[in-house]
Amino acid sequence: MDKAAAKQKFVDTFGELVEELKTILVQYKMPQEAIDWFVNSLNYNTPGGKLNRGLSVIDTYCILKGISTSDLSEEQYKKVAILGWCIELLQAYFLVADDMMDQSKTRRGQPCWYLVEGVGNIAINDSFMLEGAIYMLLKKHFREDSYYVDLLDLFHEVTFQTELGQLLDLVTADEEVVDLDKFSLLKHSFIVIFKTAYYSFYLPVALAMFMAGITKQSDLKQAQDILIPLGEYFQIQDDYLDCFGTPEQIGKIGTDIKDNKCSWVVNQALLKVTPEQRHLLDTNYGKKDDESEARVKKLFNDLGIEKTYTDYEEEVVGKLRQSIANVDETNGLKKEVFSAFLAKVYKRSK
Amino acid sequence: MDKAAAKQKFVDTFGELVEELKTILVQYKMPQEAIDWFVNSLNYNTPGGKLNRGLSVIDTYCILKGISTSDLSEEQYKKVAILGWCIELLQAYFLVADDMMDQSKTRRGQPCWYLVEGVGNIAINDSFMLEGAIYMLLKKHFREDSYYVDLLDLFHEVTFQTELGQLLDLVTADEEVVDLDKFSLLKHSFIVIFKTAYYSFYLPVALAMFMAGITKQSDLKQAQDILIPLGEYFQIQDDYLDCFGTPEQIGKIGTDIKDNKCSWVVNQALLKVTPEQRHLLDTNYGKKDDESEARVKKLFNDLGIEKTYTDYEEEVVGKLRQSIANVDETNGLKKEVFSAFLAKVYKRSK
Repeated sequence: MDKAAAKQKFVDTFGELVEELKTILVQYKMPQEAIDWFVNSLNYNTPGGKLNRGLSVIDTYCILKGISTSDLSEEQYKKVAILGWCIELLQAYFLVADDMMDQSKTRRGQPCWYLVEGVGNIAINDSFMLEGAIYMLLKKHFREDSYYVDLLDLFHEVTFQTELGQLLDLVTADEEVVDLDKFSLLKHSFIVIFKTAYYSFYLPVALAMFMAGITKQSDLKQAQDILIPLGEYFQIQDDYLDCFGTPEQIGKIGTDIKDNKCSWVVNQALLKVTPEQRHLLDTNYGKKDDESEARVKKLFNDLGIEKTYTDYEEEVVGKLRQSIANVDETNGLKKEVFSAFLAKVYKRSK
Repeated sequence: MDKAAAKQKFVDTFGELVEELKTILVQYKMPQEAIDWFVNSLNYNTPGGKLNRGLSVIDTYCILKGISTSDLSEEQYKKVAILGWCIELLQAYFLVADDMMDQSKTRRGQPCWYLVEGVGNIAINDSFMLEGAIYMLLKKHFREDSYYVDLLDLFHEVTFQTELGQLLDLVTADEEVVDLDKFSLLKHSFIVIFKTAYYSFYLPVALAMFMAGITKQSDLKQAQDILIPLGEYFQIQDDYLDCFGTPEQIGKIGTDIKDNKCSWVVNQALLKVTPEQRHLLDTNYGKKDDESEARVKKLFNDLGIEKTYTDYEEEVVGKLRQSIANVDETNGLKKEVFSAFLAKVYKRSK
């Protein structure tokens, strides 16, 4: 099955899940207008992205089982796809809220949900219900499985970690008061690991591991020890591309400089600046005008941040390859799970 | 132990829980400013109310066990108190968000959290973390108990039900477009049962039942069949007092008429109005000025809504007393659990 067909099959499963969630509301005798609203929110906010996180649950499960997607029975496929959609619902929950907190305008090429006519602050409750849908689906499909409680604990922990990352991001990058003293590489590392790496990299693999019966603490730790640095690398790459990628490459116009983001790029710059250059950063970073942004970009070029990035990338990828080579496969974990992830991230340009 | 002392002991436990949650963040090596922020949000948003929901978990557990609070070991007390605080955290999660969605100004005599200097929309993530704290605490203290997974399922289900109630409330009572055709007693009943009765009445008792080992589906159903109508009665009383109670009685100035709320009172009125009276309602309900509100109140008086309420109250209380008398105590459930709840609600004036 090619990538597009795999994605389409996964998207089709979401249609079934929306029907199942609708049925729960119908059983509660919920009035039609509220059912329609919830269905609308599910469809607007959940599919529509690249679905990498959700699809990687299926890919990882197949690697662990040593089979290809087409070998899965309909029942097996649906179950593992549900775990994938639970990550996508978790992401939808975060994004609906993040867009409100960041006052973003568009998401995935359409207006942010809270900006849709008639939605507004109701989006807060909608985000809650996107999260709630995760647990309704898990209960329906996994309640009788031995690892059900592990799934719940995992979702709770990763959700809380992501919220912690978001909190630190919010209290560090105040859009109104620019204070570069608040930034540090250590804080950057914490934000990206908690806000992104746990739910985007560790969670898909851990879910697939539970369903494949690979549940030893030591194996989960092996996965975490590779996937968290890999997720950090992914986000650093994201920060780098926001500043140095072309709009054609990244599919959007980077705004981290104007938005006063605690990005890897500015943190590297802060380590290298002279007092004069620091003054230039202080007076231009986080400003909304194009001239200030251009001055900051020129400074990043003068400081050789592109070279710093390529050096970092070679180093981290070397280390990751070493860690993957050392994975203990005794209990069924597979090196290929991690090398497949790394291949998707390494030298990507979008 | 008198009521004030019981409340103080309960509040003291919250201090311990904040320390435990803080420890989790310290173990994650979370930077201090984010730890301080979270602790501040926990303390600002969680205690400070009447704590009836939390305290009723302890009371119910003691009734089920046939002991008094002072008979509980320190360890037992803490465990049951944690379940109580988990409801209060759930409530905090809802209230922080509800206040943003309703654009409320004050809560429990202080500014709403989102209006506190420097908070703003970060309150959305803070509400998420208040919910997240529930699952961190349950895992720490109940992970080894046989009913752990039941606690998780219960919190998930009740949370989702409350969000459904809030959704219906939000799509029914648009503050900007007043349309009384959207209201109905059936919708009102659905909103109050889902938005209030499940988490405020059923949840405390069900939690205490799990901890007391009374876990049969039939017993949970007995509890639900009494507590949901009791919770509905409580909320109808609340609607009634918002309109007919004095500010001294209810400790606030009722605003349901000005806020275009889908209240029991207006729904009763809609059943009784002549076409002329309906026109008066259409043109004055949901208006922000005192004159419109006074015209609506006069209409409610003309329609004899006070009598309708006292008739309703006598009828529902009679039915509840009958249901309580019929409770099957074979498996350890006690009628007293329900009569204690009813006594707190019946003829309260605040």
